[in-house]
Formats: sequence, structure tokens, C-alpha cells
Amino acid sequence: MGKIELPIIAINFKTYQQATGERAVLLAQTCEKVAQEFGVSVVVAPQIPDLYRVSRAVSIPVFSQHMDAGDPGRFTGHILGETLVEAGCSGTLLNHSENRMLLADIEASIRKAEKLHLYTIVCTNNPLVSVAAASLGPNAVAVEPPELIGTGISVSQAQPEVISGTVEKIRAVNKDIVILCGAGISNGEDVAAATKLGAQGVLLASAVAKSKEPEKVLTDLVRPLRE
Amino acid sequence: MGKIELPIIAINFKTYQQATGERAVLLAQTCEKVAQEFGVSVVVAPQIPDLYRVSRAVSIPVFSQHMDAGDPGRFTGHILGETLVEAGCSGTLLNHSENRMLLADIEASIRKAEKLHLYTIVCTNNPLVSVAAASLGPNAVAVEPPELIGTGISVSQAQPEVISGTVEKIRAVNKDIVILCGAGISNGEDVAAATKLGAQGVLLASAVAKSKEPEKVLTDLVRPLRE
Amino acid sequence: MGKIELPIIAINFKTYQQATGERAVLLAQTCEKVAQEFGVSVVVAPQIPDLYRVSRAVSIPVFSQHMDAGDPGRFTGHILGETLVEAGCSGTLLNHSENRMLLADIEASIRKAEKLHLYTIVCTNNPLVSVAAASLGPNAVAVEPPELIGTGISVSQAQPEVISGTVEKIRAVNKDIVILCGAGISNGEDVAAATKLGAQGVLLASAVAKSKEPEKVLTDLVRPLRE
Amino acid sequence: MGKIELPIIAINFKTYQQATGERAVLLAQTCEKVAQEFGVSVVVAPQIPDLYRVSRAVSIPVFSQHMDAGDPGRFTGHILGETLVEAGCSGTLLNHSENRMLLADIEASIRKAEKLHLYTIVCTNNPLVSVAAASLGPNAVAVEPPELIGTGISVSQAQPEVISGTVEKIRAVNKDIVILCGAGISNGEDVAAATKLGAQGVLLASAVAKSKEPEKVLTDLVRPLRE
Repeated sequence: MGKIELPIIAINFKTYQQATGERAVLLAQTCEKVAQEFGVSVVVAPQIPDLYRVSRAVSIPVFSQHMDAGDPGRFTGHILGETLVEAGCSGTLLNHSENRMLLADIEASIRKAEKLHLYTIVCTNNPLVSVAAASLGPNAVAVEPPELIGTGISVSQAQPEVISGTVEKIRAVNKDIVILCGAGISNGEDVAAATKLGAQGVLLASAVAKSKEPEKVLTDLVRPLRE
Repeated sequence: MGKIELPIIAINFKTYQQATGERAVLLAQTCEKVAQEFGVSVVVAPQIPDLYRVSRAVSIPVFSQHMDAGDPGRFTGHILGETLVEAGCSGTLLNHSENRMLLADIEASIRKAEKLHLYTIVCTNNPLVSVAAASLGPNAVAVEPPELIGTGISVSQAQPEVISGTVEKIRAVNKDIVILCGAGISNGEDVAAATKLGAQGVLLASAVAKSKEPEKVLTDLVRPLRE
Repeated sequence: MGKIELPIIAINFKTYQQATGERAVLLAQTCEKVAQEFGVSVVVAPQIPDLYRVSRAVSIPVFSQHMDAGDPGRFTGHILGETLVEAGCSGTLLNHSENRMLLADIEASIRKAEKLHLYTIVCTNNPLVSVAAASLGPNAVAVEPPELIGTGISVSQAQPEVISGTVEKIRAVNKDIVILCGAGISNGEDVAAATKLGAQGVLLASAVAKSKEPEKVLTDLVRPLRE
Repeated sequence: MGKIELPIIAINFKTYQQATGERAVLLAQTCEKVAQEFGVSVVVAPQIPDLYRVSRAVSIPVFSQHMDAGDPGRFTGHILGETLVEAGCSGTLLNHSENRMLLADIEASIRKAEKLHLYTIVCTNNPLVSVAAASLGPNAVAVEPPELIGTGISVSQAQPEVISGTVEKIRAVNKDIVILCGAGISNGEDVAAATKLGAQGVLLASAVAKSKEPEKVLTDLVRPLRE
């Protein structure tokens, strides 16, 4: 995956019941529909056992929620980059707040993903950690204050300085890396506020993945990106 | 999965290149063929992103290489039991030497698997740890001296006391739990030696998963179980 | 440490400010005073950097809050058994709820401690995990429902079945191992209730370590053991 | 600890038997003697249970081998910054190859250490990870190719590009941070080669801590720094 058009709306399915198995396929298809309708990049990150069935069902980018750093060989239960490629993945989240990684493993995973042409989004918890992550050369960084994740209180409204600080600090040393933000993003206003602060997209989960009307929620989310 | 007929030959695909993606499907089909020909339970444990495609392609039991303890919800990258069921799994390895688990998480994973009717094989490294694992109530324990894993030096020949000690200590308190052994198992003689020591099956990986002639190797492995 | 007289009151100093550095020494001396006055075994578990100064100041047993499994050699930051002995420790907690260990490491640490004559208390979260821990042969098991730790809601009053269940299940297979309980224990009534349920002592932390009057609290705690 | 004079020779005692308990004190005193004789900064990092007795015996900087990120409170077995200060520490290693840390925890530990005036040396495994670590604002970074640690094959001779690459990449964005190197450093020539490549000091372990003549080895190590 050389590139994903900006802005990016990345939907983390987490281990939500409403986004598991066949329901993950249906949710991904809804995301695909909205993506096509609005011409916006919507990326889905279903659970790892669901990657293959989801990637076969949709043409939008399918990401893993995690990838380990290792090469093929004597590892049991590890999430190998090569296997993600075979499962149809275009990229992976790394270092999500609910799956923190060792510094050296983040770097090794990014190098591995580069070789495999997998797009990497490294999640971070504050501006300084974002700069460190950016210096490792992933495709994107997604800053998410952990205390807001899953709350519905949007980072872009409650802690705008986290986004603007991350953008400012990263841009001082790096012009190219994609900067996303997340935590509590649940509607179009949150997305609009985030992009105004310099974010090139958002990473979100429950607002879409747990919704009874995901199409409606998604449509509301992407609309400000097309106005 | 209430039950799997004994003896059990469990094949861990690890992250071997020869057992990834479509090659995992082909290897599982070979295992199925030998299983049916000899009427022996052959269980396959492919990589987690490969579980769905493998389970759709074969009728023998497909196991995950790992399962986390949590319930559906706010977890990213976790391997949820419910999702393994949706992916067609019949069971899971737990606590493999290359993926050791916290004691409390092993117990919680076993309880979770029970509810989901997933068959659990807890890997252990010596007789005493095997007794502890058995006391948690999984379906099976697989004792594997870590220093022999992947060596081709068979536990049943090099450290028979590990198998006999495990059998003796577990049977003193538990008549029902299935006892497997592993590490270095590569041919029918190793399997015969293991069953003579009281093991009810074997867990192996490289001998089959890295072989250029897996059908031949597997046939040699299962033959002593049918003589 | 071959033996510690029953019943045992074990005080975990955690990383409480009131029990750090010289204040750890003072608190340990208070524990020693009450221990001697009532002829009760009071064990203290200060922070690891404080072990040496505390063990030099008191004659009651000083325990580490954790011990790693390794032997001397190439390990950085690991808590080596030999070094705990040199620091004057008589024993160690293992697998505390706030410092969970891998199953195989708990077993290896117990074996290591045996060789070094260090007394081991393995913390557990429920009756079944307690049986597993007991089967590994430590000196003692301390069952503590994690959700009650630090709450002041006593396990012996709120979840008596956790204590009685642990006692019953362990005693069915093991007559010798010492059984302690913890979580929310804060006064003499809690201790009396615990011993009535079959516990041979208690493990507690905040009620003593954060108290402004630790001598008074401790006196109240040990009194029922001497009546 | 505002500052340590450059160059720095940091000696990691690891869990070597020859550098445990009272032998840690003797070794630290030897380090102090050489430091004073040559007017060179020698920093010692004994095991955590030995920190207090060592810091009371010498006036050179005593570092912990590790520090956790947390604040005082409900943590068992954690290595709290405040407690390191009480034990007489001037600083700490972070993220050693044998004790790798999560990215977010490295950053939180550095912030905590700043508040406590503890000097931080973050260990890294390659130039890119060094840049990431440097961006988090520690006092020093120590790059060590893991495959050379403990081998006696010096990084400065076998992989000079790791040192020069680290120096070049970090200096492009940061003029102030101290850059050390390590892995296989065992004599004065290795130190001279390292400083010629731009390192401002070295981190080493076995060459001194396992030596039968540590004074002689240390003298040989520091001499090139004073010529």
C-alpha cells in the first residue's frame, strides 16, 4: 500500500460484539458504501480472525488492529506481517492504547511493514510520544489521549491542544507524515474541529462500531470533509 | 466442542512460511486426508489471520494458537473467544512456550472457552506446571520441555521422565484430563514412545509444517496409533 | 526461612508515600513492636529499594514484594533471589494482583526460593487459581479478589465463599500449605472472620501502610488472634 | 542530578554474582577510586535491592538499572522514582535491552525523573530508535546493538556505523543530549574508538563487573579519556 488518499477516517472495530464475524463484514460494507458515496478514504480495522473474510468482501483498505515484529518461523500466536498480507490487509495499527508495544518492537514492525508495503498507523498518547513515533518513519501517527478513549468526549473539543501540539511538534521536523487524532470522536463536528486543528483524519471506534445506525453516523462524520 | 476422539495429533503451524495463507489451507487439507484415511484425530492450529479460510476448507478441528481472556468490548488486537467461534474454531492452544500467559489469564481463558464450547489445550514446560494447569480444568494439557522445541530431538526419547512424571502426577489427582506431549516429535517412533509412556497424543510443529512431504511425514506419525 | 509461626499478618507497603524510605523503616519498627507485644508473626513487605535498610532495622521477617525467576548473570533490572537474601529478606510475595506473573515463572521462582530458603507467598485471585498455585509447592497462598483490593470492603465479610472455597479446595489435596487471604482487610473483625473461615492469616496493605495511627490499627488487627 | 561531567563511564552491575550485595559495595568503591584518580565520571548501576547500601558507601553517582513510570500508591513490586531518590540514586537506566519498556512508559518515566531530578539514560538498539528516544528528552541515550551485548566484541570496532549513525542522526535535531554507546566494550581501545566516533561515554557491564581485577580493567578503560 503506497498511499491512502487524505483525509482518512479509520474505524477500529475493537472486540465489539456488533462488529464481530459476519457483523464485521456487514459493517465494513456499510463503511465502503459511505466511502464511495462521499469519495472519502474510510479504513476499517476488524479483529484479526475476521481480517480475511472482511478483506474479501470489500474494496476499501482493511487494516489489522496489531502486528508483531517477527519474521516467519518459530512463533506461536504471533501476528506475522506476511500473514496479514495473505489475509488481504493493506496496513495495520501499531501501539494502540489497548495494546501498547515496546519501543524497539514498534520500530522493527514499521521496518517490516515497509518491506511488505503495509501502511502503518502508530497510535500515541501525547504530542511528545507522537514526535518519537513519527521519527521512526511510519506512514501515519494517531494521537489519542487514553483518558478520553471510549468516552464520547471528543479530543478535538476537550483537549484541542493535544492535536495542535502534536501537529506543531511533528511538522517542525517532518513535513510528510500523516497526522491523525482520536479518542471520543463521534460526530461531524468533532471531525471538523480536528481537521481545523491540522489533523488529516481521525481514528474512531465505538461511535460507529457500536451504533445501531452506522451508516447514518458515518455519513454525519464524513460530510464535513466534503464541504 | 464437547470431545475429540483420542489419540490426538495436534499440528501447530506456528508462523512458518510453508504454512501461511493459501499454503495453510493446503496443509490443513493434507492433514484432513490422513486423518480420514487412518481414522485418527488430527487437529490443526494455523495462524490467527488464517483461521477462517482454513476452517472453511476442512472438516477436521481447527484450533487457534492463542486466545485472550477478555469479553467483547474495548480491546484492540485481542483474540476474543467469540470471534474464534465465528471464525470456525473448535478450540485453542493456551500458554504455548512461545506465548506464555499469566496464571490468572490462563484460568480466565479456560472459563471463557468452556462457555463457548471451545476445546482447550494448555501447554506446559514440566510435570509440576502440568499439574497446576490441569487443576484449572482445561480439556487437555500438553507438556513440552522448551529446550527441545524445534530441535528434532524427541521428548519421548530424550526426556521420557517428563512424560511419565507428568502422567503420574496428574493421574494422582485427575483421571479425565487428556495428556499430550510435545517437543522434537518428528516420526512414528517418537509417537509410539510417547503413547507407551502414557501420553494420549502429541503436539508437534516443524516436522509436519516445514516438511516438503507433509503427507508422508504425517502418515508415518499416525501409523503407530493404528497398529 | 524454614518456617514462620501461624497465624501470619503480612503487611504489603506497596508504593505508598507513607511507607517509603525512612518512613518504611519506622513503619516496620511499629510492626515489630506490635508483633513482639502480642507474640504474633507480622511480616513486612517494603519496596524493593528499601529492603536492605528495613531488614537491618528490624528482626521480624522482611519480604520482597516480587522476585524474578532468573539465576545470576546477564539480566538488567531483574530482582534476583540471591540479592534478596543479601538484602536480608526472609521471603517474597509472588504474583501479586498488581504484578501478575507467567505460570512458568511462578514455578521457577518457587524452585529458586526453595534453594535459597526464602519463604514464598503466592497471591491468587480465586479458589481455582489458588489450587493451581498450591500445587506448585510454595509455602503459602494468599487469595485476594482483585476487585476488593484497596477498597476497605473486606473479603472475609463481602465474599466469605472465596476464603472457604479456597480452604476447602486446597485442603482436599494438600494439608500443609499455609492459606492466607486478603483484600479490604482493615480491622480485627475482618481478621476474626477470616480465621473463622479457615484462613491462617491475612495479607493487607492500605489499612496499615496509609494509616496515621498504624500502631493502633495493627493492635486492633492482631488482638483477635490472641483471644 | 542536574549534570554529570563528560565523558561518562557507566558500569551496569546486571545480576552478576561478583557484583551482588557486599561485593557490589566493594566494586562501587573500586569504581570511585579510579574515578577520583583520573578525574573521570564513573557511574555505577547496581541491582535495585543493593542501591541503598551502595549509595551510602560511595560518593560517585549511583543509578538504578530500571525505574517504573508510576506515582506513589497502589503498586506492588514497582520501582518508584521517589523510592530511588530515598535510596540515594542520582539517576536510572531506562529501556535496557534486557528490560525493554513500552514507548509510552519510557516517556512517562523520563517526565517523572525530571521532576525528581534523576538523570536518565535511555538504552536503544539502533540509530533510528536512538533518535526516537532522544526526542523524548532524557539526559542521555546509550545505543547498544543487542547482538553484541556480553560478547566482548566491541560495538566501536565491529559496528562503528551504529555509533556514527546515531551521533549524526541525533545531532541533526538535538545538540544537547548526551550520546553514549555500549555492547562489547572491554578495554581502552574500545573506549577511544567510541569517543572518536562521537560518543561522549560508554555503558558497559561484564568487562568490569565480572573481572577478577576490576581496578586494572577500569584504569585501562578510563586512561584514553585523560590523554
